[in-house]
Formats: sequence, C-alpha cells, structure tokens
Amino acid sequence: MRYELYYWPTIQGRGEFVRLAFEATGTDYVDVARLPEADGGGEAALLRLLDGAKTIWPPFAAPFLKVGERLIGQTANILQYLGPHLGLAPRGTVDRLWLHQLQLTIADLVGEVHDTHHPIASGLYYQEQKREAKRRSADFLQHRLPKFLDYFEGVLDANPHRSGLLVGARLSYADLSVFQLIAGLRYAFPRTMTRQEAAWPGLIALHDLVARQPSVAAYLASSRRLPFCEEDVFRHYPELEG
Amino acid sequence: MRYELYYWPTIQGRGEFVRLAFEATGTDYVDVARLPEADGGGEAALLRLLDGAKTIWPPFAAPFLKVGERLIGQTANILQYLGPHLGLAPRGTVDRLWLHQLQLTIADLVGEVHDTHHPIASGLYYQEQKREAKRRSADFLQHRLPKFLDYFEGVLDANPHRSGLLVGARLSYADLSVFQLIAGLRYAFPRTMTRQEAAWPGLIALHDLVARQPSVAAYLASSRRLPFCEEDVFRHYPELEG
Repeated sequence: MRYELYYWPTIQGRGEFVRLAFEATGTDYVDVARLPEADGGGEAALLRLLDGAKTIWPPFAAPFLKVGERLIGQTANILQYLGPHLGLAPRGTVDRLWLHQLQLTIADLVGEVHDTHHPIASGLYYQEQKREAKRRSADFLQHRLPKFLDYFEGVLDANPHRSGLLVGARLSYADLSVFQLIAGLRYAFPRTMTRQEAAWPGLIALHDLVARQPSVAAYLASSRRLPFCEEDVFRHYPELEG
Repeated sequence: MRYELYYWPTIQGRGEFVRLAFEATGTDYVDVARLPEADGGGEAALLRLLDGAKTIWPPFAAPFLKVGERLIGQTANILQYLGPHLGLAPRGTVDRLWLHQLQLTIADLVGEVHDTHHPIASGLYYQEQKREAKRRSADFLQHRLPKFLDYFEGVLDANPHRSGLLVGARLSYADLSVFQLIAGLRYAFPRTMTRQEAAWPGLIALHDLVARQPSVAAYLASSRRLPFCEEDVFRHYPELEG
C-alpha cells in the first residue's frame, strides 16, 4: 500500500516534516497535490478532502495522510503513526511517547516561527501586519528561539545513549525535524543564526548528520525538495532581524 | 501509584484539561504545586523539575505529569498517555490516534485563544500589546473561532455512533476538553458566544452533558476548581470583543 500525502504543492511548510520521513527511509509515497490535475492531483485534490469530505476522520488542515480510506491529520500525529512503520521510532512505548512529546514541542516552535511574520492573522498579508511582525520577531529572537534551542540542546545532553540523537541510539523522525528546523532558521534568520548557533553544537551536528544521510542528500539535491520561499513558514524578511 | 500533576497553582490554564480527566474519573492524583511549600508543594516544586532537572525526560513547560521517575509533558501527550488508564480513550489504535488528533486541534485553538490577548509576546503584559490584541481578537472572533467550532461540530455529525460524543460511544478526554473550551469561550467572549453559540448545538449539548456528570459537577462546585481569571488562557477583556 502506497502512502498518500496531501499538502500544499508549492511550499515545504509543515508537510516537509512528513516528506523528510518518507524520503529519508526511501518509502514509496505520493505527494498527491503535486501531481498534475489531469492525474487527480493539484490543490483541487487536497481541497476535495479538506472541505466537507464525507469521512469519519475529517482533517482540520493540511498536511494529512491517506492510508486506505483513513485520513490522518496533524503533523506530529502523522509522524507518530508513521514512525514505527518507517523504522523512525524507538521500540518501547515510553520512548515513543517521549519522542512524540519532543515532536509536539518542535511543532510549538514552528508555530511561533510562523507567527513572527503573521502575528495578527494568517488570513492577512505580511505587509498588513509588518509593524506587529517586527515587534513579535524581536521578542522571538531574543527570548523564545534561545529558550527552545537551549531546551533541545539539553535533550541531546540528557540522552543516556550519548548518541547525538534526541532519543535512544537510532535516528528518529524528530531528528529529521531538527534538520528542517535548523535549515529553516538559517534561511529565515541568517544573521541571528550566524551569530548564535555555536551555542547549540549538538543541534548543528545533528543537522549535519541528517543532511549527510545518502537518502536525505539525494532528496535535497532533487527537484522534489522545494526551495524555501516567502509563502512558507520560514520566511526571510531581513527587516525582522532588527 | 498516585499520579502527580505539576502545573501553576493559581490558574486553570492548560493544566485544567488534565485535572478534568482526573476529576471526571475519580482518579487519585496530587496537584503538587497547590500543596503548601512546607509539604513539598508550591511553585518551587514545579520549578525544581522544570529548570535543569537531572532527568532523561525534561519537560519544556507545565503541565507535566510525574509517574514514578518518569516525567510526561505536553497536554495532549499527557492525555494520550492517561486516556487508556483512566477509561477515557477508545479501545482501538485507529480510534485512539483519531482522538489524539482531535485533542491536538483543540490545543491549537487554545493556543490561538491565548494569542488573542498576547499576540506579541508571552513575556509582556497585556497592557503592553493591547492595540495588537484588539486586531488579533477581531480576526480570531470573525474567522478562526467559527472555523474551529464548525469543524468540531462537523466531527460530532460525522461520528457514525451518533452518540453526541467526539469519538465512538463512550466519553473521552477530548469530550471533557470540549466542556472546558466552551466554558472558557463563554467566559472570555460572552457577547460573541451569546450571539453565535446556537450555531454549534452539538458542542453545547456536549458541554452540558459533561457538566452533568456527577463527578464533574462535584468538582466544579469544589474549591479544587479554580475560577477563571485574567492571568489565565481564557481572559475576559470586554474591549477585545470590539
């Protein structure tokens, strides 16, 4: 059975955390909305399932996964489901819950990154909330970003396996998400990261380790990896770095 | 073994979703930070575990649960863990994942409620971001709140059991969370809810059904149920209703 991922076809966004899990493991999947409309793809395919689909499991937002008739939404929940199937989760239930907890905290950070450029409303353009975005970004870069990254660095330090990974001694989906976080933060806030990222050597090493995985490196070099852009979660607006 | 809940002792906040799960099921638990400091309670007890505790499972924020030596954080993750133990989750793994997905969407809504009064920074006072809070609240009340509540109303409609509950035919932790959502929204945005809540009859009926559970009713009438207040997630600032 082939996994069907539904996500906006022109951005990395939250869908990228799921794409990375598929790509890193060489899993067969379809990125449905990136297929031509003639082949049942495009945003139309996504919107058909998102808006009032007659399903027992309506998703609130993209990304969501279609597995048979079943729809599975919420990025961290999708990864929690996929983890064991893709070999990206530890064996024990205690470790799995802990891994999921970390993924939820990553999701919180991603939400705060989004709100640096959209502090007032997702439905308004950045230009309509630029003044507020500057205030929010200043606070984010001064307080929130270091708090989150210090935390994840501490998690690496607290891992009794000393593996350089977040949980246990085998690569997990949350490790892949750390790669995406660091890559996105470097894109969005290059001056801040250049100045400060030495404070998080474990996270940078983990980013590099993931990027060196042959399957990930091949993905990043392919046209399947969409570029960062200013329609996405991680946006580079130089004025937001103060 | 007694569950130990760690949360800020003077507010409902995100901890309330966990308290409700314990209270509705008559489960033995300790709300540690609400004990006197002399008995090992108070905020000091919470902060000891939150800041640089030597643990394999450091939590990023409260609430978190202590089960033996293990710490479990992230509200939805705590509930996912507790659900089966407390009889507040369905049996099958498909239904459990779906229930958790709904809880994550509830968490997203709670986050957006928080940001109506704190759109710029959690670390600043409301008065320092009041202008931005008015803009964000206007958008929230016009677009986001109906989108979320329409969604959950649709989930009730799509439940093949027609039980009036979110998942299956037995009360779950997410049903308890819907009670808290509706109660909180009525407190924070009374004019909006009075005008609009008839659009969500299923959610209101679910709120009422939960409130009528004898264990919940007893809890709500007790001193263990903290009152809503303006240090909390749900805050009543009349000016934010426009």
